[in-house]
Amino acid sequence: MMNVQLTIAPMMERAEQYFSRKQVISRTATGIHRLTYGEIGERTRRLASALKKLGVKRGDRVGTLAWNHHRHLEAYFAIPGMGAVLHTINIRLSPDHITYIINHAEDQVLLIDEDLLPLIEGCKDHLHTVKAYILMTDHDELPASSLQPLYSYEALLREGDPHFEYPIDIQENEPAGMCYTSATTGKPKGVVYTHRGIVLHCMGIGLVDSLALSESDVCMPVVPMFHVNAWGLPFAATWFGTTQVLPGPRFTPQLLAELIESEKVTVAAGVPTIWLGLYQELEKGRYDTSSLRNIVCGGSAAPRGMIKAYAEKFNIPVLHAYGMTETSPLVTVSRLKSYQQDLPLEAKLDVYAKQGMVVPGLEVKVVGPHGEVKWDGQEMGELLVRGPWIADEYYRDERSQEAFIDGWLHTGDVATIDEEGTIKLVDRTKDLIKSGGEWISSVDLENALMAHEAVLEAACIGVPHPKWDERPVACVVPKAGSEGKVTKEELLAYLAPQFPKWWLPDDIVFVSEIPKTTVGKFMKRALREQFQHHFTAQTDVR
Amino acid sequence: MMNVQLTIAPMMERAEQYFSRKQVISRTATGIHRLTYGEIGERTRRLASALKKLGVKRGDRVGTLAWNHHRHLEAYFAIPGMGAVLHTINIRLSPDHITYIINHAEDQVLLIDEDLLPLIEGCKDHLHTVKAYILMTDHDELPASSLQPLYSYEALLREGDPHFEYPIDIQENEPAGMCYTSATTGKPKGVVYTHRGIVLHCMGIGLVDSLALSESDVCMPVVPMFHVNAWGLPFAATWFGTTQVLPGPRFTPQLLAELIESEKVTVAAGVPTIWLGLYQELEKGRYDTSSLRNIVCGGSAAPRGMIKAYAEKFNIPVLHAYGMTETSPLVTVSRLKSYQQDLPLEAKLDVYAKQGMVVPGLEVKVVGPHGEVKWDGQEMGELLVRGPWIADEYYRDERSQEAFIDGWLHTGDVATIDEEGTIKLVDRTKDLIKSGGEWISSVDLENALMAHEAVLEAACIGVPHPKWDERPVACVVPKAGSEGKVTKEELLAYLAPQFPKWWLPDDIVFVSEIPKTTVGKFMKRALREQFQHHFTAQTDVR
Repeated sequence: MMNVQLTIAPMMERAEQYFSRKQVISRTATGIHRLTYGEIGERTRRLASALKKLGVKRGDRVGTLAWNHHRHLEAYFAIPGMGAVLHTINIRLSPDHITYIINHAEDQVLLIDEDLLPLIEGCKDHLHTVKAYILMTDHDELPASSLQPLYSYEALLREGDPHFEYPIDIQENEPAGMCYTSATTGKPKGVVYTHRGIVLHCMGIGLVDSLALSESDVCMPVVPMFHVNAWGLPFAATWFGTTQVLPGPRFTPQLLAELIESEKVTVAAGVPTIWLGLYQELEKGRYDTSSLRNIVCGGSAAPRGMIKAYAEKFNIPVLHAYGMTETSPLVTVSRLKSYQQDLPLEAKLDVYAKQGMVVPGLEVKVVGPHGEVKWDGQEMGELLVRGPWIADEYYRDERSQEAFIDGWLHTGDVATIDEEGTIKLVDRTKDLIKSGGEWISSVDLENALMAHEAVLEAACIGVPHPKWDERPVACVVPKAGSEGKVTKEELLAYLAPQFPKWWLPDDIVFVSEIPKTTVGKFMKRALREQFQHHFTAQTDVR
Repeated sequence: MMNVQLTIAPMMERAEQYFSRKQVISRTATGIHRLTYGEIGERTRRLASALKKLGVKRGDRVGTLAWNHHRHLEAYFAIPGMGAVLHTINIRLSPDHITYIINHAEDQVLLIDEDLLPLIEGCKDHLHTVKAYILMTDHDELPASSLQPLYSYEALLREGDPHFEYPIDIQENEPAGMCYTSATTGKPKGVVYTHRGIVLHCMGIGLVDSLALSESDVCMPVVPMFHVNAWGLPFAATWFGTTQVLPGPRFTPQLLAELIESEKVTVAAGVPTIWLGLYQELEKGRYDTSSLRNIVCGGSAAPRGMIKAYAEKFNIPVLHAYGMTETSPLVTVSRLKSYQQDLPLEAKLDVYAKQGMVVPGLEVKVVGPHGEVKWDGQEMGELLVRGPWIADEYYRDERSQEAFIDGWLHTGDVATIDEEGTIKLVDRTKDLIKSGGEWISSVDLENALMAHEAVLEAACIGVPHPKWDERPVACVVPKAGSEGKVTKEELLAYLAPQFPKWWLPDDIVFVSEIPKTTVGKFMKRALREQFQHHFTAQTDVR
């Protein structure tokens, strides 16, 4: 077979040639723009030539700090197309972390949205490698800025070469992109995407049994383009000639609903929070969402209740998917097998609420304390992933050895796998309670407790124990009016019929609130520190 | 990204693990067999271990002479899975050519269907490399045969290792399969398929915008498994867990119709002749074909009338595809773009009757006498193809340099490409008439002549001409009753308004029949020889 490398530029060239009249609908600070793939293709060539003129070389990293819009899409192709590396920077990180990753990646040029200029101005004195800044603005005039040299994106494009030819000698294992992911402790960790990984991941996205993205779709990635390449959708959608709707900065549920209706969006992708917000907007009942064939939901577990509500109230199927920065990200999609199509709705929802089956091209296994777990939907183990679009290391980071072991990515997610091969995430390994060599799911205990009428919030943690290594302790916030009334004994009696005896918390502590991260997740690490001597101290006292 | 190679064994392992209860319905000499992927998976491991015991080594070629059935499917995976090379042998070749390709490929072992035993017995004295023969039969006892040693497939499987593990160090560029294609002159030419090529081709088959093969399909490859891997369908269908229907030896249109109805086939694939035959059978009106979502038609051009008849009479969409042995084979599929969905039926049929648009992952170009042709659906050029599942040579064959030039496969097909990028084949380069540096399509002239009420058959050829290099001559067989009545002048006057003046044949010769190949195609080479001095002789006389 021909030694034809799997690279990114031909994907945009296909859109230019075969879908030159199809559109990318892009929202920026000044409103909606409609560009054809013919126009986007030419603009991408102009951008690539402009970057070359600025001195960007093969393998150089070029950072983007930008929302979802057509200029970001052009950067997605121009940067790897010319042989450089697209480093999408998560604008929600702290300025410290943003400074760290720009320096760590050694970004040569930064492309910045106008509203994010102050963020980078605040970092600039600590940036060691950036030689030029490009402002992605609709306006011709540049604002006053301490960033130097600062170029206008549109001015660069005007001077750029519309006939720029992408180098044809790029090898598929060369880096094409990178993205940093937050770590529980320490600095963010960088993941490098190769041309090959991105192309194969796009093929994965276009398979019928996966996300089934196609030319006839109108695809709206709500997931940010600075987050794992917006799940690879902008790459795949361009390749297939799919109409794209890019919702721009600081959108609201109302805006998303309006775009779905006006642009006849068929598939939209984002995290559960987005869809919970959209649901409330749709309940106002003024929107026609009949064009939607799927809402793709990932990033964290899609609540079963939300999936059910979308299905029953709006006839919109939520497609539950799983992945992470290290996996490009698509690993599993929750679809019914052909012989499950006639299941009753509740049984179907049981499938949809799981993370799903591994897509063709990857392998997964679930490894518990005693080796690979049974496919019974019960036994828990850590989810391991392997495949050609899975990272094999963190970029120049010693923490690689914690996650990449013997050719498998150890995801840090605890899962079960059922008779059909469907994965269900039940916990994070760091939150898992390891008692006497067995595993207890903190999430399962929490969900059970939070279903009790007197409980507002509950967090379960593993606390060091002299005999059992760890034992569960539940921290419970009672609902208003139940404070001082609900008792430890009552809650334990309530849990008892639902779990094996050894799963039951050794203690239940009532607290006024659970500490939370900036995105609202329980900060169990803080609780573990607080309670680290809970059993040993008691033992000492005895 | 991980260095995970794209290889074949994991495709069968996925079917074993995730679709263990789904079925392969296989017809052999003794009737219908139903095996699950769980069973097929185990049998495949047993076969791989048996081949290893017989001495088959990494890279060795193992030939198959077999129809479409489950044992052939097992061989599809066992042979490349263990690191050897699956050589599917076209049983319709002459014994001389079969002998040639077995020797040229240096097959070590042959797997043979019982009814094809006499064919190989006839060749065996000339086979230089074959060390063992395996009979794929339902019966335990072996028939008397001059082939030695001859093993029973099922006996080998009984003694085989059900837990055989496929080697995990196979590199994706190692050979996995091979297939020989007939040449216009000389011996057949061999094409080698790599693991990588086959896996990427499978992904191509699973894309929504391509054949859209999925788990929910019931796929019946009618195209023989000895012909370009049955268009890759058995590989892809296994990978995706698709139910397969393998129609076995010497099937009839009635059998195909019965299988479509009883097994609820959703997608069937084969050459136009098959579908013309099936159409006549379906017209008898006793079959429920409502399960069919597509008939995939390739191998030669699907007649527009047939596509229309299937659509109008049976509501079955014919999916027109193009490829060849050298291309794995999928190159183009004729699908409507989203904005073509509202075209009137006749305009849609105009699209469906073309060969379609290149699938994602490949590139095509159409190169005429003056370079790449305009995308106007008029200008003709040779179709060139490039991509990771396109061959880069013929196996140990000097004729490689005629077809593989500067990184492109020169298909020998003459095509136009329209504004949408849709390819239409109009001729073969060898049949094209090259006049004064311009190209004339012999097929277009023939079709126009055969539409005349007095013409039964017409073949147009390029005849050497002292001034114009070549000029067209039409050989015409009049219909019964028109012999001696229809004249050259009448036919030229009929053609004149349909073509540029310089396209019109310089001569029209009436003949009693057109010489034909064994498969019924015009043997234009014979005509060209017969008429080679047609103009030069005349010139001499003048």
